[in-house]
Amino acid sequence: MKTTQVQLASTPEGTPTEDNFSLVEVELPSLGESEVLCETQYLSLDPYMRSQISGRHLSGAVNPGQGMSGETIARVLESRSEAFAEGDLVRVMGGWQTHSIHAATEVAPVPSGDVPASYFLSALGMPGLTAYAGLIWQAKPQAGETVLIPAATGGVGAVAGQLAKSHGCRVIGIAGGAEKCRIATEELGYDACIDRLAGDVGEQLDALSPDGVDVFFDLVGGELLHQVSQRLKVGARVILCGMIAEYNAKERMPGPPPALWIIARATVYGLVVYDFESRRQEFVDAVAPLIDAGTLLVPEDMVEGLANAPALFCRLMRGENRGKAVVKVA
Amino acid sequence: MKTTQVQLASTPEGTPTEDNFSLVEVELPSLGESEVLCETQYLSLDPYMRSQISGRHLSGAVNPGQGMSGETIARVLESRSEAFAEGDLVRVMGGWQTHSIHAATEVAPVPSGDVPASYFLSALGMPGLTAYAGLIWQAKPQAGETVLIPAATGGVGAVAGQLAKSHGCRVIGIAGGAEKCRIATEELGYDACIDRLAGDVGEQLDALSPDGVDVFFDLVGGELLHQVSQRLKVGARVILCGMIAEYNAKERMPGPPPALWIIARATVYGLVVYDFESRRQEFVDAVAPLIDAGTLLVPEDMVEGLANAPALFCRLMRGENRGKAVVKVA
Repeated sequence: MKTTQVQLASTPEGTPTEDNFSLVEVELPSLGESEVLCETQYLSLDPYMRSQISGRHLSGAVNPGQGMSGETIARVLESRSEAFAEGDLVRVMGGWQTHSIHAATEVAPVPSGDVPASYFLSALGMPGLTAYAGLIWQAKPQAGETVLIPAATGGVGAVAGQLAKSHGCRVIGIAGGAEKCRIATEELGYDACIDRLAGDVGEQLDALSPDGVDVFFDLVGGELLHQVSQRLKVGARVILCGMIAEYNAKERMPGPPPALWIIARATVYGLVVYDFESRRQEFVDAVAPLIDAGTLLVPEDMVEGLANAPALFCRLMRGENRGKAVVKVA
Repeated sequence: MKTTQVQLASTPEGTPTEDNFSLVEVELPSLGESEVLCETQYLSLDPYMRSQISGRHLSGAVNPGQGMSGETIARVLESRSEAFAEGDLVRVMGGWQTHSIHAATEVAPVPSGDVPASYFLSALGMPGLTAYAGLIWQAKPQAGETVLIPAATGGVGAVAGQLAKSHGCRVIGIAGGAEKCRIATEELGYDACIDRLAGDVGEQLDALSPDGVDVFFDLVGGELLHQVSQRLKVGARVILCGMIAEYNAKERMPGPPPALWIIARATVYGLVVYDFESRRQEFVDAVAPLIDAGTLLVPEDMVEGLANAPALFCRLMRGENRGKAVVKVA
């Protein structure tokens, strides 16, 4: 049994290009006791993968010559575990490949229902859990508060923005380009969206919200975090979740002067989604009804074919994706 | 009626010297309706005053030619308010001067009792409330956790360290010089104290607590905050309270890379003591019994005479004080 996989060919300097990846056929080992053979249906592409190929991510490094890792929705082709049967739909860290073998303990069932299976990689999956944990469990937004969401139409941002709106907040997005801003306000319900390519973000924020921001869900870091930290209301909450600004940098960037957070009496939370795995069902139970009701839309930027994964990932890294980046593999 | 006051003569560049202050006699206005005339007994000198004379403090600026501000314990000499009688002992922002006039609404009674009145400027006053709010209400230390306190023998640090100890924590101090470290461990009950003048603080901390720190009560900022942020345990709390490191700098220093706080899943709190004024009684009720019982010592660095206030303040700024800096004025 063979799997076709995308490997890291070389560690990118700066923004990744398709040359940094290669498509390779690899022989799979034979299926062991308590293992399942999975056929990938959907592969999730996420910004954190840039940290993995730099060797800087909590979950570990991907080095040249190794297969790219990533979460997948897969179909069980063969099972040597009583927990799973042939044909079951599962969620697993299958990686950027067509087939994979896993211990049954590493595989989670995907609930059957009307929701597209790929949603368990986005609004009902890790990006959604990230948004929910940071916004609802950490920041605890109150009706009437002003919430600022960068990468407003991305996998995490789109869920966070719509959740904030459903909690009665005034929600301002930040996105790159007029079309993304249109999606944010016209489709996702943001009250306003700042085009970061169309002028100084701080000045645009001042115009939209002269009194500042109550909640900042930071997916970017760097200069943006500094600018927003100068514009926090007293009692603000800042969720430190992602650092898109430094994905292509060689060294970590310093943070904003702590005095800004003292002046705002801010509470700043470091968010790692893995810590909230035990509360996943609570999150699904809260968000699935919003999706069913059409209150929460799930924009997906989906391409077909594993061979197109590197191109989509590079688009994601250039900020050109529209919604959650997903590859339809099977 | 005249008052003798210390004015700011010139804004210091870098560490203040006595030349930056002058002793001046000023005529007080006559006592108005609902006002009280106060005679200063004790004047509190605190690090935040360095920010005031730089024009960077939340509470406002002190410019050359203006009297220095500060909290005082005073005796009421004359009252045109029913709330206070001649002879009452009060707490008020009397400033660096022998006499002052205040609206009765700006004056708080000092409870009579066995505790020296000056303690209401230290362990039972603003520094104590700062320590209590940050450590107990924000960081919520648990028995067995490792708590790190810089400026370990100062007005805030001495209270925070002893409170952490009384909560069953392992408490590590940081202080400048062997004598302060001796006071911290032998008199105040710290489990260990790092001499910041005797080698790299990070390396000393690694040796004392290889697993890192659960709670950091930051009074310093700058490089120390960066070093400690690299050594936080998962679930750590950081209280951002003071920035001694940048008091003499012209520009605000950047903070540590936010990634360090994500890795630690840290919660970081900006602390401004004024926000906790409404809970002062709750704090006094908790701390006063510890003082009565001898569990919580109140080290004071007291000089006599208002004319000696600038010298004591300059010593405080050079980190040479031993305990809470207080001037006995009357």
